[in-house]
Amino acid sequence: MKNNGLADTVKQTDFDKMGAELYRVVSDLFPICRSITGDGVRETLQYIKKVVPVELHEISSGTKVFDWTVPKEWNIRDAYVKDSKGKRVIDFNKSNLHVLNYSIPVKKKVSLQELQEHLFTLPEYPDWIPYRTSYYKENWGFCLSHKDFEKLKEDSYEVFVDSTLQNGYLTFGEYFIKGQLPDEVLISTHICHPSLCNDNLSGIAMTALLAKQLSNADLRYSYRFLFIPGTIGSITWLAMNEKNVSKIKHGLVVACVGDAGNFTYKKTRQGNAEIDHVVMNILENSESDFKLIDFFPYGYDERQFCSPGFNLPVGCLMRTPHGEYPEYHTSADDLELVGAKNLAASLKMCFTIVNVLEENKKYINQNPKCEPQLGRRGIYRHIGGHPDSRKFQLAMLWVLNSSDGHHSLVDIAERSGLQFGLISEAAEILAAENLLKESVG
Amino acid sequence: MKNNGLADTVKQTDFDKMGAELYRVVSDLFPICRSITGDGVRETLQYIKKVVPVELHEISSGTKVFDWTVPKEWNIRDAYVKDSKGKRVIDFNKSNLHVLNYSIPVKKKVSLQELQEHLFTLPEYPDWIPYRTSYYKENWGFCLSHKDFEKLKEDSYEVFVDSTLQNGYLTFGEYFIKGQLPDEVLISTHICHPSLCNDNLSGIAMTALLAKQLSNADLRYSYRFLFIPGTIGSITWLAMNEKNVSKIKHGLVVACVGDAGNFTYKKTRQGNAEIDHVVMNILENSESDFKLIDFFPYGYDERQFCSPGFNLPVGCLMRTPHGEYPEYHTSADDLELVGAKNLAASLKMCFTIVNVLEENKKYINQNPKCEPQLGRRGIYRHIGGHPDSRKFQLAMLWVLNSSDGHHSLVDIAERSGLQFGLISEAAEILAAENLLKESVG
Amino acid sequence: MKNNGLADTVKQTDFDKMGAELYRVVSDLFPICRSITGDGVRETLQYIKKVVPVELHEISSGTKVFDWTVPKEWNIRDAYVKDSKGKRVIDFNKSNLHVLNYSIPVKKKVSLQELQEHLFTLPEYPDWIPYRTSYYKENWGFCLSHKDFEKLKEDSYEVFVDSTLQNGYLTFGEYFIKGQLPDEVLISTHICHPSLCNDNLSGIAMTALLAKQLSNADLRYSYRFLFIPGTIGSITWLAMNEKNVSKIKHGLVVACVGDAGNFTYKKTRQGNAEIDHVVMNILENSESDFKLIDFFPYGYDERQFCSPGFNLPVGCLMRTPHGEYPEYHTSADDLELVGAKNLAASLKMCFTIVNVLEENKKYINQNPKCEPQLGRRGIYRHIGGHPDSRKFQLAMLWVLNSSDGHHSLVDIAERSGLQFGLISEAAEILAAENLLKESVG
Repeated sequence: MKNNGLADTVKQTDFDKMGAELYRVVSDLFPICRSITGDGVRETLQYIKKVVPVELHEISSGTKVFDWTVPKEWNIRDAYVKDSKGKRVIDFNKSNLHVLNYSIPVKKKVSLQELQEHLFTLPEYPDWIPYRTSYYKENWGFCLSHKDFEKLKEDSYEVFVDSTLQNGYLTFGEYFIKGQLPDEVLISTHICHPSLCNDNLSGIAMTALLAKQLSNADLRYSYRFLFIPGTIGSITWLAMNEKNVSKIKHGLVVACVGDAGNFTYKKTRQGNAEIDHVVMNILENSESDFKLIDFFPYGYDERQFCSPGFNLPVGCLMRTPHGEYPEYHTSADDLELVGAKNLAASLKMCFTIVNVLEENKKYINQNPKCEPQLGRRGIYRHIGGHPDSRKFQLAMLWVLNSSDGHHSLVDIAERSGLQFGLISEAAEILAAENLLKESVG
Repeated sequence: MKNNGLADTVKQTDFDKMGAELYRVVSDLFPICRSITGDGVRETLQYIKKVVPVELHEISSGTKVFDWTVPKEWNIRDAYVKDSKGKRVIDFNKSNLHVLNYSIPVKKKVSLQELQEHLFTLPEYPDWIPYRTSYYKENWGFCLSHKDFEKLKEDSYEVFVDSTLQNGYLTFGEYFIKGQLPDEVLISTHICHPSLCNDNLSGIAMTALLAKQLSNADLRYSYRFLFIPGTIGSITWLAMNEKNVSKIKHGLVVACVGDAGNFTYKKTRQGNAEIDHVVMNILENSESDFKLIDFFPYGYDERQFCSPGFNLPVGCLMRTPHGEYPEYHTSADDLELVGAKNLAASLKMCFTIVNVLEENKKYINQNPKCEPQLGRRGIYRHIGGHPDSRKFQLAMLWVLNSSDGHHSLVDIAERSGLQFGLISEAAEILAAENLLKESVG
Repeated sequence: MKNNGLADTVKQTDFDKMGAELYRVVSDLFPICRSITGDGVRETLQYIKKVVPVELHEISSGTKVFDWTVPKEWNIRDAYVKDSKGKRVIDFNKSNLHVLNYSIPVKKKVSLQELQEHLFTLPEYPDWIPYRTSYYKENWGFCLSHKDFEKLKEDSYEVFVDSTLQNGYLTFGEYFIKGQLPDEVLISTHICHPSLCNDNLSGIAMTALLAKQLSNADLRYSYRFLFIPGTIGSITWLAMNEKNVSKIKHGLVVACVGDAGNFTYKKTRQGNAEIDHVVMNILENSESDFKLIDFFPYGYDERQFCSPGFNLPVGCLMRTPHGEYPEYHTSADDLELVGAKNLAASLKMCFTIVNVLEENKKYINQNPKCEPQLGRRGIYRHIGGHPDSRKFQLAMLWVLNSSDGHHSLVDIAERSGLQFGLISEAAEILAAENLLKESVG
């Protein structure tokens, strides 16, 4: 059985150990100041490269990508606001969230009033620093807790942002595993956020370790992993790979998978794609609550993959969706918000999704007229020996009855109400007895 | 923007004033004794002509119209029942409901017993006079309150109906507004009922004033208004216009729109027509309760428009449906049952329907691959300035994502859960920026 | 009206008398030891032949039928277990359930321990003898009540099964009624169970008497009745009649129709077949509760008729489904479990199904443009004289409006919410007036 390798990999994986490893990746990457371009992204990808050999791509500023242009590259070394006594009242070194991401360089003295026009706070969470960006409108600014903001007094402040915004590159990482089929599964995660853990160091760590694990398995599909800056990254990748996107048969955007919330699956724009049925089947048969959301045209990079000119079958896997937890896009999205157990369970979920995708074949019953005689083939031996022999026999009958080339094993699991694993196990035995033949194409 | 004219018309309309005007039309037309043919209909149409220049059509008795024949014309001058003392115990002059509509002429003395065979009452509502007709079976008769009926004693009665039933004409009114497109919206209302207010002076008044208001607007569709006697009128019109009915892309039969009940929309026979989605979207986004009914083959003239040989996309707008209020087809359907406010709100509802139909275009995203960059086009300026900027931005994204030529703006409003107005406003801005192009045909 | 014959037959049937007759058939057939082959089946079919002239078919052991082979024929004369005192502690003569069905011949002395390996009991129902078979795996055995089982002491037992398992025949019965059309309705029931009443002497009796009654009627469809051993019988019949199965337009497997439970209808694999709509319409308009089940690939011979290579529109009518009553496949499925009233009501249900199938035509409105004028044809006479004249008029309008060749009368009944009988009666009058014409093919 070709994919036993994968199923075995899952079974043999020590998910406690894996959780610790995932959490270490998150912790290691946490201090880096990332953005949609720049050295923070490069440093992050170099780190990932040690986990799994991603290929780095560098696309020049100014490159036209559909309706967009690859922006100038942003890099930052230091930033602060000093009061008249020279005390750093806002300090980039304490948290890279303090600087408005993509802030242009500035060095000047300003009054409190002028300063305030460039400050961002969260009055409803006075202890937290908000995360703000200004990618496409040149501006400078600082983010700080509302508590600290209220301490600022009338004074002459020195503002300093030691950044550069110059022609350079947009950097992203790509990792490809060649399977038996040219058909691809796309797994994409965004790498543009600075020190925020759930959004999206969780996604980065999980995707990297998923890729690492799959690289050892014998796979039916080919797998393509993207580590890209949000929006401009997926647009750039799509522009550069427009001719090959038809190979993508299934896809997942992975983000915010480290918090303690239940899984959320956002369906593809198609709404009825195989990946939708696969993930729904897994979630419906899991023991936890979960949430299904119909596609809507905002969120993460599924927005681009599912734009009407592509309409790729790409869904999005999250735990608590973006914007639905208060810590979202604040300094409270830190190392405490994410947990090793959550990360490990997310990785396990992705393994399961991949495993079901790999196993989700369509078969054709080779004896479609009446039931085949299972008894004389000794198949009842398999059934009798099964822990749930009654259900396993039903699984055999369902697979035989539904295998007319139009129904995948997930379809059969859905219709029969039986677990995919049982259906898949039944199909394997029946195929081994030549009662089923895989329906290709 | 072509239809701003219409949207502005609606905004500028003083619906309080309009309510008073609608109520005046109802009051003015109330005393006239109408039927499916005759001078009452002519007088009514002459009155409407002062509101909006409807064209009168006269179709000869005996004309074959599909399976039917245009009947003889009926006119009536007086009718009464006198007791032996010469007292008018039933008097047409007091209410034209007292005579069986289409009653043949009669003048004779009858006993109480013989008289009773020609009397109609409503025992369950003893104060009300019922409304009865005998169009296609020659008969004479009187309708009276059950209370008065019970006062009739053994006597010799003189019955007199001063009517004529002779070859003449069936009269109906038609008003056409030419829009940019040859595609037509049909709005039809029945004019055959005598002194009954809700059924259907309400529909007549509302349709006339809707036609008047639309005649001043710059319209995409052409609009055809029919003021016709029920059943035989629509059959006659369809027989005479059989070749042109394919121009009718949307239609509404309007009746019983003056009472205080919530709106009721009866869907077209097709059940999934654009007019169905338009009206449902408006009702679902209104603040009042409403009722949706699937098509059924009785009711008003939608029966004919939706007969299987035509199957036109014609729905029916009412408040309380016929037969579901006790005053229906009785003398209690009078000037007190209908209200200026109700009439005005019905007119406003029809304006809204027309407005959504006019605006409900399909567009094609001109940058279907990935999202276009809204920022560099200054579109965020529109968004930022919007009272509900978050929803307005979503509206933009939904319109862009769904505009593949298959989804109308109402479809997008339905799918996104956003107000049609927001979707339409977003589409207008995107089209102005050449990000969308109307999909024609 | 062609089928009045049938409707009249139903009306004139004395179902009390019929119930007694059905119960007598069940009682007469109860003692016979049936199996999937052998003289018990022949004797049963000979009995049925006196009710309705079924044709007996004998298929040789060893005949290949799709993936199966017709098995050896099994016959049994006696079987017992005697204790060392010569007392029959288990005796085939007391109940034919005592022997494992298809038990091979055996005659030997065994210890209690060895004996126990061949005994089957039902610990949860200690008074009942289970029914067990071993058709395709040669074995000998006895079934007994758990109470009796517990009385067995250490002893030397003589076991004796006087059976034969030899080349012979598989026997089944078939009865065909030629109707006006070559299109067939299949009604199939299994005849392989020994002394079990509900499963399936009830089905045998009901099918035999249904066939008898229909043989006197003037029928539109042809009807084919199968009295076959379960599984191997339907497989054999399908193998022998493969070329003709396309004539089967509707079908029912009938089983377990004598108990007091409500009706259960298991839909065809197609799920949307005419027989599904017919039975659902009848059940939904009946006054009793009922149960609808989607197709699943186990149960009775619908498994074979609905295998993917045939996918025939064959549903299954039961009262309490197999396995859902405790007496199922035990000695408690006896003459007390089934009742004359239940059997008669099941027969009446099948008559109703046949009657609706016969009447369920599609018509084409001959005046599809606008409504035809019913008044001048005197149709209001029919309506006025009808016990529920308002509904009957609606039925006329629904039939006219929906008769576009795509909707059968059952479809119209479903959509309108009116009784099929009313719809059918309306169609008959309209067809007699040439307002409808049957849509053939």
